[in-house]
Amino acid sequence: MTEAPGAVVLLSGGLDSTTALAVARSRGYRSRALTFDYGQRHRHELAAAARVARALGATDHKVIAFDLRAFGGSALTAEIDVPRDRPAEEMARGIPITYVPARNTVFLSFALAWAETLGAADIFAGMNALDYSGYPDCRPEYLEAFEHMANLATKAGVEGACRFRIHTPLLRMTKAEIIRTGLELGVDYGLTHSCYDPAPDGRACGRCDACGLRLKGFREAGVKDPARYAGDATP
Amino acid sequence: MTEAPGAVVLLSGGLDSTTALAVARSRGYRSRALTFDYGQRHRHELAAAARVARALGATDHKVIAFDLRAFGGSALTAEIDVPRDRPAEEMARGIPITYVPARNTVFLSFALAWAETLGAADIFAGMNALDYSGYPDCRPEYLEAFEHMANLATKAGVEGACRFRIHTPLLRMTKAEIIRTGLELGVDYGLTHSCYDPAPDGRACGRCDACGLRLKGFREAGVKDPARYAGDATP
Repeated sequence: MTEAPGAVVLLSGGLDSTTALAVARSRGYRSRALTFDYGQRHRHELAAAARVARALGATDHKVIAFDLRAFGGSALTAEIDVPRDRPAEEMARGIPITYVPARNTVFLSFALAWAETLGAADIFAGMNALDYSGYPDCRPEYLEAFEHMANLATKAGVEGACRFRIHTPLLRMTKAEIIRTGLELGVDYGLTHSCYDPAPDGRACGRCDACGLRLKGFREAGVKDPARYAGDATP
Repeated sequence: MTEAPGAVVLLSGGLDSTTALAVARSRGYRSRALTFDYGQRHRHELAAAARVARALGATDHKVIAFDLRAFGGSALTAEIDVPRDRPAEEMARGIPITYVPARNTVFLSFALAWAETLGAADIFAGMNALDYSGYPDCRPEYLEAFEHMANLATKAGVEGACRFRIHTPLLRMTKAEIIRTGLELGVDYGLTHSCYDPAPDGRACGRCDACGLRLKGFREAGVKDPARYAGDATP
Protein backbone atom coordinates (compact mmCIF):
# COMPACT_ATOMS: atom_id res chain seq x y z
CA MET A 1 0.00 0.00 0.00
CA THR A 2 1.50 3.34 -1.01
CA GLU A 3 1.25 6.32 1.31
CA ALA A 4 -1.19 9.07 0.39
CA PRO A 5 0.52 12.04 -1.32
CA GLY A 6 1.22 15.03 0.87
CA ALA A 7 -0.15 18.51 0.32
CA VAL A 8 0.27 21.87 2.03
CA VAL A 9 -3.02 23.75 2.42
CA LEU A 10 -3.20 27.47 3.15
CA LEU A 11 -5.71 27.72 5.97
CA SER A 12 -6.93 31.05 7.29
CA GLY A 13 -9.83 29.55 9.20
CA GLY A 14 -12.33 31.21 6.89
CA LEU A 15 -14.99 29.59 4.76
CA ASP A 16 -12.98 29.34 1.53
CA SER A 17 -9.72 27.93 2.88
CA THR A 18 -11.65 25.47 5.05
CA THR A 19 -13.45 24.23 1.94
CA ALA A 20 -10.12 23.97 0.10
CA LEU A 21 -8.80 21.76 2.92
CA ALA A 22 -11.92 19.57 2.71
CA VAL A 23 -11.42 19.24 -1.06
CA ALA A 24 -7.74 18.27 -0.61
CA ARG A 25 -8.77 15.61 1.88
CA SER A 26 -11.51 14.32 -0.42
CA ARG A 27 -8.90 13.92 -3.18
CA GLY A 28 -6.84 11.66 -0.93
CA TYR A 29 -4.07 14.05 0.17
CA ARG A 30 -2.44 13.87 3.58
CA SER A 31 -2.88 17.54 4.27
CA ARG A 32 -0.66 19.84 6.27
CA ALA A 33 -2.37 23.10 7.16
CA LEU A 34 -0.43 26.38 7.11
CA THR A 35 -1.71 29.51 8.84
CA PHE A 36 -0.18 32.98 9.14
CA ASP A 37 -0.24 35.27 12.12
CA TYR A 38 0.69 38.49 10.30
CA GLY A 39 -0.73 41.22 12.46
CA GLN A 40 -4.21 40.92 10.97
CA ARG A 41 -7.03 42.65 12.84
CA HIS A 42 -9.22 39.56 12.78
CA ARG A 43 -7.20 37.33 15.08
CA HIS A 44 -10.19 35.10 15.77
CA GLU A 45 -9.16 33.57 12.43
CA LEU A 46 -6.23 31.88 14.16
CA ALA A 47 -8.42 30.04 16.65
CA ALA A 48 -10.77 29.06 13.84
CA ALA A 49 -7.87 27.70 11.80
CA ALA A 50 -6.79 25.47 14.69
CA ARG A 51 -10.36 24.17 15.15
CA VAL A 52 -10.75 23.47 11.43
CA ALA A 53 -7.35 21.75 11.07
CA ARG A 54 -8.29 19.41 13.90
CA ALA A 55 -11.84 18.77 12.67
CA LEU A 56 -10.74 18.05 9.10
CA GLY A 57 -7.92 15.73 10.15
CA ALA A 58 -4.91 17.75 8.96
CA THR A 59 -1.79 15.70 9.77
CA ASP A 60 0.03 18.82 10.90
CA HIS A 61 -0.79 22.50 11.44
CA LYS A 62 1.84 25.19 11.55
CA VAL A 63 1.36 28.86 12.30
CA ILE A 64 4.05 31.16 10.90
CA ALA A 65 4.18 34.55 12.57
CA PHE A 66 5.52 37.75 11.03
CA ASP A 67 4.43 41.34 11.12
CA LEU A 68 3.12 42.72 7.83
CA ARG A 69 2.07 45.85 9.72
CA ALA A 70 5.72 46.87 9.49
CA PHE A 71 4.99 47.83 5.87
CA GLY A 72 1.61 49.50 6.53
CA GLY A 73 -0.94 50.00 3.79
CA SER A 74 -4.07 47.87 4.32
CA ALA A 75 -7.30 47.92 6.28
CA LEU A 76 -6.66 44.36 7.45
CA THR A 77 -3.37 45.21 9.09
CA ALA A 78 -3.54 48.94 9.80
CA GLU A 79 -5.93 51.29 11.54
CA ILE A 80 -8.08 52.07 8.52
CA ASP A 81 -11.86 51.61 8.82
CA VAL A 82 -13.18 48.40 7.30
CA PRO A 83 -16.01 49.23 4.87
CA ARG A 84 -19.52 48.15 5.94
CA ASP A 85 -22.88 47.35 4.38
CA ARG A 86 -21.61 47.46 0.80
CA PRO A 87 -23.63 45.65 -1.87
CA ALA A 88 -21.82 42.78 -3.60
CA GLU A 89 -21.68 44.70 -6.90
CA GLU A 90 -19.74 47.49 -5.24
CA MET A 91 -17.34 45.03 -3.57
CA ALA A 92 -16.64 43.41 -6.94
CA ARG A 93 -15.57 46.74 -8.45
CA GLY A 94 -11.91 47.78 -8.42
CA ILE A 95 -9.29 46.68 -5.94
CA PRO A 96 -10.65 46.79 -2.37
CA ILE A 97 -8.90 48.74 0.37
CA THR A 98 -8.67 45.40 2.18
CA TYR A 99 -6.09 44.40 -0.45
CA VAL A 100 -2.81 43.58 1.32
CA PRO A 101 0.20 44.14 -0.98
CA ALA A 102 1.63 40.84 -2.21
CA ARG A 103 -0.05 38.90 0.59
CA ASN A 104 -0.87 35.79 -1.38
CA THR A 105 2.64 35.80 -2.84
CA VAL A 106 4.13 35.84 0.64
CA PHE A 107 1.72 33.08 1.77
CA LEU A 108 2.32 30.85 -1.24
CA SER A 109 6.08 31.33 -0.89
CA PHE A 110 5.99 29.94 2.63
CA ALA A 111 3.75 27.09 1.44
CA LEU A 112 6.33 26.34 -1.24
CA ALA A 113 9.14 26.32 1.34
CA TRP A 114 7.26 23.83 3.50
CA ALA A 115 6.14 21.69 0.56
CA GLU A 116 9.69 21.37 -0.72
CA THR A 117 10.98 20.47 2.73
CA LEU A 118 8.30 17.77 3.00
CA GLY A 119 8.85 16.46 -0.52
CA ALA A 120 5.24 17.38 -1.31
CA ALA A 121 4.36 18.69 -4.78
CA ASP A 122 0.86 19.98 -4.12
CA ILE A 123 -0.29 23.23 -2.59
CA PHE A 124 -3.98 23.94 -2.06
CA ALA A 125 -5.43 27.39 -1.52
CA GLY A 126 -8.90 28.86 -1.40
CA MET A 127 -8.48 31.72 -3.86
CA ASN A 128 -11.62 32.73 -5.68
CA ALA A 129 -11.71 34.86 -8.81
CA LEU A 130 -15.41 35.78 -8.65
CA ASP A 131 -16.09 37.24 -5.23
CA TYR A 132 -12.62 38.74 -5.03
CA SER A 133 -12.32 39.78 -8.64
CA GLY A 134 -10.61 42.95 -7.48
CA TYR A 135 -7.63 41.14 -5.96
CA PRO A 136 -4.84 40.77 -8.52
CA ASP A 137 -3.40 37.81 -6.61
CA CYS A 138 -6.60 35.76 -6.93
CA ARG A 139 -6.54 35.67 -10.75
CA PRO A 140 -5.72 32.56 -12.78
CA GLU A 141 -2.90 34.29 -14.70
CA TYR A 142 -1.21 35.22 -11.43
CA LEU A 143 -1.53 31.69 -10.08
CA GLU A 144 -0.05 30.22 -13.27
CA ALA A 145 2.87 32.65 -13.06
CA PHE A 146 3.46 31.70 -9.44
CA GLU A 147 3.44 27.99 -10.30
CA HIS A 148 5.91 28.55 -13.13
CA MET A 149 8.20 30.56 -10.85
CA ALA A 150 7.93 27.91 -8.10
CA ASN A 151 9.26 25.20 -10.37
CA LEU A 152 12.29 27.33 -11.24
CA ALA A 153 12.84 28.43 -7.63
CA THR A 154 13.33 25.09 -6.01
CA LYS A 155 15.78 22.23 -5.92
CA ALA A 156 12.92 19.76 -6.24
CA GLY A 157 11.47 21.60 -9.23
CA VAL A 158 14.81 22.03 -11.01
CA GLU A 159 15.98 18.47 -10.40
CA GLY A 160 12.62 17.16 -11.57
CA ALA A 161 11.94 15.41 -8.26
CA CYS A 162 8.48 16.89 -8.40
CA ARG A 163 6.46 19.42 -10.31
CA PHE A 164 4.80 21.87 -7.93
CA ARG A 165 1.15 22.53 -8.52
CA ILE A 166 -0.98 25.28 -7.02
CA HIS A 167 -4.49 23.87 -6.68
CA THR A 168 -7.27 26.41 -6.33
CA PRO A 169 -10.40 24.25 -6.52
CA LEU A 170 -12.70 27.18 -5.65
CA LEU A 171 -11.30 29.57 -8.23
CA ARG A 172 -14.38 29.75 -10.43
CA MET A 173 -17.10 28.84 -7.91
CA THR A 174 -19.71 31.21 -6.53
CA LYS A 175 -19.88 31.46 -2.75
CA ALA A 176 -23.05 29.34 -2.81
CA GLU A 177 -21.24 26.64 -4.81
CA ILE A 178 -18.35 26.72 -2.35
CA ILE A 179 -20.73 26.28 0.57
CA ARG A 180 -22.58 23.41 -1.10
CA THR A 181 -19.26 21.73 -1.94
CA GLY A 182 -18.13 21.97 1.66
CA LEU A 183 -21.41 20.74 3.07
CA GLU A 184 -21.29 17.70 0.79
CA LEU A 185 -17.82 17.01 2.18
CA GLY A 186 -19.09 17.28 5.76
CA VAL A 187 -17.64 20.69 6.67
CA ASP A 188 -19.07 22.30 9.81
CA TYR A 189 -19.03 26.00 8.86
CA GLY A 190 -19.82 26.86 12.46
CA LEU A 191 -16.09 26.30 13.11
CA THR A 192 -15.00 28.90 10.56
CA HIS A 193 -14.46 32.63 10.91
CA SER A 194 -14.84 35.14 8.07
CA CYS A 195 -15.52 38.53 9.65
CA TYR A 196 -13.01 41.39 9.21
CA ASP A 197 -14.33 43.24 12.26
CA PRO A 198 -15.64 40.81 14.91
CA ALA A 199 -16.91 41.64 18.40
CA PRO A 200 -14.43 40.99 21.24
CA ASP A 201 -16.12 37.63 21.89
CA GLY A 202 -15.50 36.57 18.29
CA ARG A 203 -19.05 36.96 16.97
CA ALA A 204 -19.16 38.21 13.39
CA CYS A 205 -20.27 41.79 12.64
CA GLY A 206 -22.51 40.76 9.74
CA ARG A 207 -21.74 44.03 7.93
CA CYS A 208 -18.18 43.98 6.57
CA ASP A 209 -17.42 42.75 3.03
CA ALA A 210 -16.46 39.28 4.26
CA CYS A 211 -19.69 38.88 6.26
CA GLY A 212 -21.70 40.29 3.36
CA LEU A 213 -20.28 37.79 0.87
CA ARG A 214 -20.66 34.93 3.31
CA LEU A 215 -24.29 35.71 4.21
CA LYS A 216 -25.19 36.19 0.55
CA GLY A 217 -23.60 32.79 -0.20
CA PHE A 218 -25.58 31.01 2.50
CA ARG A 219 -28.79 32.70 1.33
CA GLU A 220 -28.14 31.61 -2.26
CA ALA A 221 -27.25 28.09 -1.14
CA GLY A 222 -30.54 27.99 0.79
CA VAL A 223 -28.79 27.08 4.04
CA LYS A 224 -28.60 28.84 7.40
CA ASP A 225 -25.11 30.06 8.34
CA PRO A 226 -24.20 28.32 11.63
CA ALA A 227 -21.74 31.11 12.56
CA ARG A 228 -22.57 33.40 15.48
CA TYR A 229 -23.36 37.02 14.59
CA ALA A 230 -23.43 40.02 16.90
CA GLY A 231 -26.83 41.39 17.95
CA ASP A 232 -29.10 42.77 15.30
CA ALA A 233 -26.89 41.56 12.48
CA THR A 234 -28.10 37.98 12.95
CA PRO A 235 -29.12 36.70 9.51
CA MET B 1 13.73 68.97 -8.53
CA THR B 2 12.17 65.52 -8.60
CA GLU B 3 12.69 63.15 -5.71
CA ALA B 4 15.05 60.20 -6.23
CA PRO B 5 13.21 56.97 -7.05
CA GLY B 6 12.77 54.54 -4.18
CA ALA B 7 14.12 51.00 -4.07
CA VAL B 8 13.92 48.11 -1.65
CA VAL B 9 17.25 46.34 -1.18
CA LEU B 10 17.55 42.87 0.34
CA LEU B 11 20.36 43.22 2.86
CA SER B 12 21.73 40.24 4.76
CA GLY B 13 24.79 42.09 5.99
CA GLY B 14 27.04 39.93 3.85
CA LEU B 15 29.45 41.01 1.16
CA ASP B 16 27.13 40.56 -1.82
CA SER B 17 24.00 42.27 -0.50
CA THR B 18 26.13 45.12 0.86
CA THR B 19 27.59 45.64 -2.60
CA ALA B 20 24.08 45.52 -4.10
CA LEU B 21 23.03 48.31 -1.73
CA ALA B 22 26.08 50.36 -2.73
CA VAL B 23 25.19 49.85 -6.41
CA ALA B 24 21.57 50.93 -5.82
CA ARG B 25 22.83 54.07 -4.11
CA SER B 26 25.31 54.79 -6.90
CA ARG B 27 22.43 54.62 -9.40
CA GLY B 28 20.57 57.32 -7.50
CA TYR B 29 17.96 55.29 -5.63
CA ARG B 30 16.69 56.23 -2.19
CA SER B 31 17.24 52.78 -0.75
CA ARG B 32 15.25 51.03 1.94
CA ALA B 33 17.08 48.01 3.34
CA LEU B 34 15.18 44.83 4.23
CA THR B 35 16.67 42.15 6.45
CA PHE B 36 15.22 38.85 7.67
CA ASP B 37 15.62 37.27 11.05
CA TYR B 38 14.54 33.76 10.09
CA GLY B 39 16.20 31.56 12.65
CA GLN B 40 19.51 31.50 10.80
CA ARG B 41 22.50 30.19 12.69
CA HIS B 42 24.66 33.15 11.73
CA ARG B 43 22.86 35.86 13.68
CA HIS B 44 25.89 38.13 13.53
CA GLU B 45 24.49 38.90 10.07
CA LEU B 46 21.74 40.97 11.67
CA ALA B 47 24.17 43.27 13.47
CA ALA B 48 26.20 43.58 10.28
CA ALA B 49 23.07 44.50 8.28
CA ALA B 50 22.28 47.31 10.71
CA ARG B 51 25.87 48.66 10.50
CA VAL B 52 25.86 48.50 6.70
CA ALA B 53 22.44 50.14 6.31
CA ARG B 54 23.63 53.04 8.44
CA ALA B 55 27.02 53.34 6.76
CA LEU B 56 25.56 53.27 3.23
CA GLY B 57 22.82 55.81 4.03
CA ALA B 58 19.73 53.61 3.64
CA THR B 59 16.70 55.83 4.29
CA ASP B 60 15.02 53.04 6.26
CA HIS B 61 15.96 49.57 7.51
CA LYS B 62 13.37 47.00 8.49
CA VAL B 63 13.96 43.57 9.97
CA ILE B 64 11.17 41.06 9.41
CA ALA B 65 11.25 38.13 11.80
CA PHE B 66 9.80 34.68 11.17
CA ASP B 67 10.95 31.20 11.93
CA LEU B 68 11.90 29.10 8.90
CA ARG B 69 13.19 26.45 11.33
CA ALA B 70 9.55 25.44 11.71
CA PHE B 71 9.91 23.71 8.34
CA GLY B 72 13.35 22.18 8.98
CA GLY B 73 15.63 21.07 6.20
CA SER B 74 18.77 23.24 5.92
CA ALA B 75 22.17 23.61 7.53
CA LEU B 76 21.60 27.35 7.91
CA THR B 77 18.52 26.95 10.04
CA ALA B 78 18.78 23.45 11.54
CA GLU B 79 21.36 21.51 13.48
CA ILE B 80 23.20 20.05 10.50
CA ASP B 81 26.98 20.53 10.33
CA VAL B 82 28.11 23.30 8.03
CA PRO B 83 30.69 21.91 5.57
CA ARG B 84 34.27 23.15 5.98
CA ASP B 85 37.44 23.51 3.95
CA ARG B 86 35.82 22.65 0.64
CA PRO B 87 37.53 23.80 -2.55
CA ALA B 88 35.53 26.26 -4.69
CA GLU B 89 35.08 23.67 -7.43
CA GLU B 90 33.31 21.33 -5.02
CA MET B 91 31.08 24.15 -3.71
CA ALA B 92 30.05 24.98 -7.26
CA ARG B 93 28.88 21.41 -7.89
CA GLY B 94 25.24 20.43 -7.27
CA ILE B 95 22.88 22.09 -4.83
CA PRO B 96 24.60 22.76 -1.49
CA ILE B 97 23.15 21.45 1.78
CA THR B 98 23.09 25.11 2.81
CA TYR B 99 20.24 25.56 0.31
CA VAL B 100 17.14 26.76 2.18
CA PRO B 101 13.93 25.74 0.40
CA ALA B 102 12.34 28.69 -1.39
CA ARG B 103 14.28 31.18 0.72
CA ASN B 104 14.87 33.78 -1.97
CA THR B 105 11.22 33.48 -3.03
CA VAL B 106 10.09 34.24 0.51
CA PHE B 107 12.58 37.14 0.75
CA LEU B 108 11.64 38.65 -2.61
CA SER B 109 7.93 38.31 -1.78
CA PHE B 110 8.38 40.44 1.33
CA ALA B 111 10.44 42.93 -0.68
CA LEU B 112 7.60 43.09 -3.20
CA ALA B 113 5.08 43.72 -0.42
CA TRP B 114 7.13 46.59 0.94
CA ALA B 115 7.92 48.02 -2.49
CA GLU B 116 4.26 48.09 -3.46
CA THR B 117 3.33 49.75 -0.17
CA LEU B 118 5.99 52.42 -0.78
CA GLY B 119 5.06 52.91 -4.41
CA ALA B 120 8.58 51.81 -5.37
CA ALA B 121 9.12 49.75 -8.52
CA ASP B 122 12.68 48.62 -7.97
CA ILE B 123 14.03 45.77 -5.87
CA PHE B 124 17.75 45.16 -5.58
CA ALA B 125 19.27 41.87 -4.45
CA GLY B 126 22.77 40.43 -4.35
CA MET B 127 22.13 37.10 -6.04
CA ASN B 128 25.06 35.67 -7.92
CA ALA B 129 24.84 32.92 -10.50
CA LEU B 130 28.56 32.03 -10.50
CA ASP B 131 29.61 31.35 -6.94
CA TYR B 132 26.18 30.01 -6.07
CA SER B 133 25.53 28.17 -9.29
CA GLY B 134 24.00 25.36 -7.27
CA TYR B 135 21.17 27.49 -5.89
CA PRO B 136 18.13 27.31 -8.18
CA ASP B 137 16.86 30.62 -6.84
CA CYS B 138 19.97 32.51 -7.94
CA ARG B 139 19.53 31.74 -11.66
CA PRO B 140 18.47 34.35 -14.25
CA GLU B 141 15.48 32.27 -15.43
CA TYR B 142 14.16 32.10 -11.88
CA LEU B 143 14.58 35.85 -11.38
CA GLU B 144 12.77 36.58 -14.65
CA ALA B 145 9.90 34.30 -13.62
CA PHE B 146 9.67 36.04 -10.25
CA GLU B 147 9.57 39.46 -11.91
CA HIS B 148 6.82 38.33 -14.29
CA MET B 149 4.80 36.91 -11.39
CA ALA B 150 5.33 40.08 -9.33
CA ASN B 151 3.75 42.24 -12.01
CA LEU B 152 0.66 40.02 -12.06
CA ALA B 153 0.48 39.73 -8.26
CA THR B 154 0.13 43.36 -7.40
CA LYS B 155 -2.32 46.19 -7.67
CA ALA B 156 0.47 48.49 -8.83
CA GLY B 157 1.61 46.01 -11.48
CA VAL B 158 -1.89 45.25 -12.76
CA GLU B 159 -3.00 48.87 -12.84
CA GLY B 160 0.19 49.84 -14.60
CA ALA B 161 1.18 52.28 -11.84
CA CYS B 162 4.63 50.76 -12.02
CA ARG B 163 6.48 47.86 -13.53
CA PHE B 164 8.38 45.98 -10.83
CA ARG B 165 11.98 45.16 -11.62
CA ILE B 166 14.27 42.78 -9.78
CA HIS B 167 17.78 44.18 -10.13
CA THR B 168 20.62 41.74 -9.51
CA PRO B 169 23.67 43.77 -10.49
CA LEU B 170 26.10 41.09 -9.23
CA LEU B 171 24.47 38.20 -11.06
CA ARG B 172 27.32 37.51 -13.47
CA MET B 173 30.26 38.92 -11.50
CA THR B 174 33.03 36.90 -9.90
CA LYS B 175 33.59 37.47 -6.19
CA ALA B 176 36.70 39.49 -7.04
CA GLU B 177 34.68 41.70 -9.40
CA ILE B 178 32.04 42.20 -6.71
CA ILE B 179 34.72 43.26 -4.22
CA ARG B 180 36.36 45.64 -6.67
CA THR B 181 32.94 47.14 -7.52
CA GLY B 182 32.17 47.70 -3.85
CA LEU B 183 35.60 49.18 -3.09
CA GLU B 184 35.20 51.65 -5.98
CA LEU B 185 31.88 52.68 -4.41
CA GLY B 186 33.50 53.18 -1.02
CA VAL B 187 32.22 50.09 0.77
CA ASP B 188 33.97 49.18 4.01
CA TYR B 189 33.86 45.39 3.92
CA GLY B 190 35.03 45.32 7.52
CA LEU B 191 31.39 46.06 8.40
CA THR B 192 30.07 42.96 6.62
CA HIS B 193 29.63 39.42 7.86
CA SER B 194 29.74 36.34 5.63
CA CYS B 195 30.60 33.37 7.86
CA TYR B 196 28.08 30.53 8.32
CA ASP B 197 29.71 29.39 11.55
CA PRO B 198 31.27 32.31 13.43
CA ALA B 199 32.89 32.27 16.85
CA PRO B 200 30.72 33.55 19.74
CA ASP B 201 32.43 36.95 19.46
CA GLY B 202 31.45 37.21 15.80
CA ARG B 203 34.83 36.48 14.23
CA ALA B 204 34.58 34.47 11.02
CA CYS B 205 35.69 30.81 10.98
CA GLY B 206 37.59 31.13 7.70
CA ARG B 207 36.67 27.57 6.74
CA CYS B 208 32.98 27.36 5.78
CA ASP B 209 31.85 27.77 2.16
CA ALA B 210 30.98 31.44 2.68
CA CYS B 211 34.39 32.25 4.20
CA GLY B 212 36.10 30.18 1.50
CA LEU B 213 34.42 32.10 -1.32
CA ARG B 214 35.04 35.42 0.37
CA LEU B 215 38.73 34.82 1.05
CA LYS B 216 39.25 33.54 -2.49
CA GLY B 217 37.53 36.69 -3.79
CA PHE B 218 39.79 39.01 -1.80
CA ARG B 219 42.87 37.06 -2.88
CA GLU B 220 41.86 37.33 -6.53
CA ALA B 221 41.04 41.03 -6.12
CA GLY B 222 44.51 41.51 -4.62
CA VAL B 223 43.09 43.15 -1.49
CA LYS B 224 43.28 42.17 2.17
CA ASP B 225 39.92 41.23 3.71
CA PRO B 226 39.33 43.67 6.60
CA ALA B 227 37.00 41.17 8.39
CA ARG B 228 38.16 39.59 11.64
CA TYR B 229 38.91 35.85 11.50
CA ALA B 230 39.22 33.44 14.39
CA GLY B 231 42.73 32.34 15.42
CA ASP B 232 44.79 30.38 12.94
CA ALA B 233 42.30 30.92 10.12
CA THR B 234 43.49 34.52 9.69
CA PRO B 235 44.10 34.96 5.98
